[in-house]
Amino acid sequence: MQKKPAIPKGTRDFSPRETVRRKYLIRVIEEKFQRYGYAPIETPSFENRSTLMGKYGEAGDRLIFQILDSGDFLKRADKDAWAQGNSSALAPSIASKVLRYDLTVPFARYVAQHQSEVCFPFKRYQIQAVWRADRPQKGRFREFYQCDADVVGADSLWQEVELVQLYDDVFNALHLPVCIRLNSRKLLAGLAEVAGISDRFAPFTTALDKWDKIGSQKAVAEMRQAGIPQSAIDALAPFFELDTASNQQRLEVLESTLKSVAVGQSGIAELRFILERIQDHGLKIAELDLDLTLARGLDYYTGAIFEVLGKGIALGSLGGGGRYDELTGIFGLSGISGVGISFGLDRVYLALEARGLFPDLAGDKPQLLFVHFGAAEAAYSYRLVAALRDRGVSCELYPEAVKLKKQLAYAHKNQVPYVAVAGSEEVASQAVTLRNMCTGQQETLSRDAFLKRVLLFHTRSEKTD
Amino acid sequence: MQKKPAIPKGTRDFSPRETVRRKYLIRVIEEKFQRYGYAPIETPSFENRSTLMGKYGEAGDRLIFQILDSGDFLKRADKDAWAQGNSSALAPSIASKVLRYDLTVPFARYVAQHQSEVCFPFKRYQIQAVWRADRPQKGRFREFYQCDADVVGADSLWQEVELVQLYDDVFNALHLPVCIRLNSRKLLAGLAEVAGISDRFAPFTTALDKWDKIGSQKAVAEMRQAGIPQSAIDALAPFFELDTASNQQRLEVLESTLKSVAVGQSGIAELRFILERIQDHGLKIAELDLDLTLARGLDYYTGAIFEVLGKGIALGSLGGGGRYDELTGIFGLSGISGVGISFGLDRVYLALEARGLFPDLAGDKPQLLFVHFGAAEAAYSYRLVAALRDRGVSCELYPEAVKLKKQLAYAHKNQVPYVAVAGSEEVASQAVTLRNMCTGQQETLSRDAFLKRVLLFHTRSEKTD
Repeated sequence: MQKKPAIPKGTRDFSPRETVRRKYLIRVIEEKFQRYGYAPIETPSFENRSTLMGKYGEAGDRLIFQILDSGDFLKRADKDAWAQGNSSALAPSIASKVLRYDLTVPFARYVAQHQSEVCFPFKRYQIQAVWRADRPQKGRFREFYQCDADVVGADSLWQEVELVQLYDDVFNALHLPVCIRLNSRKLLAGLAEVAGISDRFAPFTTALDKWDKIGSQKAVAEMRQAGIPQSAIDALAPFFELDTASNQQRLEVLESTLKSVAVGQSGIAELRFILERIQDHGLKIAELDLDLTLARGLDYYTGAIFEVLGKGIALGSLGGGGRYDELTGIFGLSGISGVGISFGLDRVYLALEARGLFPDLAGDKPQLLFVHFGAAEAAYSYRLVAALRDRGVSCELYPEAVKLKKQLAYAHKNQVPYVAVAGSEEVASQAVTLRNMCTGQQETLSRDAFLKRVLLFHTRSEKTD
Repeated sequence: MQKKPAIPKGTRDFSPRETVRRKYLIRVIEEKFQRYGYAPIETPSFENRSTLMGKYGEAGDRLIFQILDSGDFLKRADKDAWAQGNSSALAPSIASKVLRYDLTVPFARYVAQHQSEVCFPFKRYQIQAVWRADRPQKGRFREFYQCDADVVGADSLWQEVELVQLYDDVFNALHLPVCIRLNSRKLLAGLAEVAGISDRFAPFTTALDKWDKIGSQKAVAEMRQAGIPQSAIDALAPFFELDTASNQQRLEVLESTLKSVAVGQSGIAELRFILERIQDHGLKIAELDLDLTLARGLDYYTGAIFEVLGKGIALGSLGGGGRYDELTGIFGLSGISGVGISFGLDRVYLALEARGLFPDLAGDKPQLLFVHFGAAEAAYSYRLVAALRDRGVSCELYPEAVKLKKQLAYAHKNQVPYVAVAGSEEVASQAVTLRNMCTGQQETLSRDAFLKRVLLFHTRSEKTD
């Protein structure tokens, strides 16, 4: 006898109810991606080691899962690394494949590899699992899904406008109020130039990114530690607290500060274009908030950057993205600019659950269950089951003639809304008794009337789906 | 500069066109699974080593991908195994997680682990990737999808009937003519008993399974090698060549042969029930063929077994399944019988492609592209883009005001069916010129007439989808 089975930490089983909800969420996002002209691709779960390693910084590399080579991997093992007990030096000789860590680098690899087939500007979306050997905690898993939409090969700011609207459309379809934070790496570069800390830009943005998360005091402390002088911090801090003004007013304040800084002016012009276009069209559910503390830790962003927060939900970011240059350059294809956004599927799921926003979904239960009394009744019932399935109704015949109580308990536990009873009387009169499991009401109907009634319920539930 | 990027052998990138087709195929299968009352679950991509190892036989174990432990894995490495250069002895000490090899063992683990939440009979489906370190060849990959539907906790033969109909329904929806081969492990056990080779049942069924694939002569040779006497083979061979008779006639032949063999009689009664019920209801596209050479290599099958072949397609099996007992017993939950079927997604895909059976699918291209002439025209066009997206139309604005020729080439290459032209004249008169990219015809319409026209095309294409 084995001990009770378990799954690796940081991974999850999804029950029918959870799976149906995840599929619903993916379907909503996917439908909007397609509506905006993004087409799906998929890449392998594992890539060659050289494709991913070194692309996420040292900390990222450590979180990449490696696949042990098959067969007699010791033949190629690095003997020196073993002798030194150096795991990270040994690994490359025995693990030549690694699990996908995000969807961005595989996308860049895809574009570079298939550049002759791809038609630029290339708008792709990708919804697949990624794996990270991170310490599991609430809302952080070792296997989780990313949902990315990117367009590469176009510099146009219309793409940024469209991606803000895409975020708005998805969250509107989910009925989840959000705030889209907007900023530009160019503005931040301009401010760094004004404050004379351009040489500390990377640690500056890394610390700034935490302004909201750990509080301004701790973020400032981190900047000091990174060698950014207090005078620079004092000069910049007011911009990180521009809470009260409108987005346009914030831009005006920046305009005068960055008057003589080219990169800053360029950032202002870009954000102005995006904000004005969004103003023209309006947003359905999202609020768009120019927030100078948004920095996005990832080094590869070069222009506008986005982050989505659920309103009144302390779950961290529900998604993010931005403009990058040269992403495919790491794979030998240079001069390609791109911009993209990502949805954190697991967090959006948690947000919808917390807000009770999942609709009543079909798919984790049949709409109708026929109870089973014996061979003749089952044959009679199964004919109706087959007829209803042919018309699109999800239904089933309880497989065995066990006690009625047990069969009804099955219907209850699975939340089947209707039960059909066809006992010997019903068979004799070619009828069916239909029972509403919610109200307990039941009615005996002719076979035809029964089919019509069920199809009516079915059509109604399809419409509200 | 890096060399041209590539992906690991046996894996694949899927282009938009391929991904859209795969999604279509999954959607068709999934919709039928749900209609038959099967609910989806998902399990993690990797399981604990002990969950999967030893469940697929020695040959299977060798094909399981192992994940190198993160961090300083050498700390726990088996020094003796290293000293002996024994890779397979070393692996357990440095790789405690392994990639999913099929969906059946994880399902058994799921049921055992969640037995208190699961309501039996439990009908689940699962569509996820699996990984095997197999030698890649045509139609065989190291990463591929399985689509399984199983019901556990019910002995009823109605499940077998339903699963045959489910196969029929899916292939009918795909317009792919198939033959469903049907047999029973009990019949084979009965025949082995009659021939006095019950002690060689496993090698007998393994060789029998190849009767079709490598030909009867080679299969017979393999039986001889496995110690099955020629006299037994001579006695059994006629049953493996019962091609001409109807399914019912074949059962009659067997009936007399197996008269005094309990397990054989039980197999006959079961198949008779299944065949009669299917006869009552009929099949839409599939042919059901009782074939005594069908054995299904997997040891765990105990009752009816199935295999699907495409008619006139030499691709091997498109799916298979059967009745098993005690699958969850390996995880400590005994006395649970189950039956299930599986679809080989990649092979079904190849079959549909070979037969030209994929419909014209949306999703890999927008339905409409607005060309881009400049700021004012783009603003005018984008308003229409947003309005159409709100009404469900997949459309886009070309991101930049490059030469018209280049924009039209983009539409052509992406097979966008309609292009909308809104130049300065159209903007002035609040009109749009709509061009059918297939016929080359174009017409200038008022804004309202344009929207109506596009929505009409859209509704039509939705209907044929």
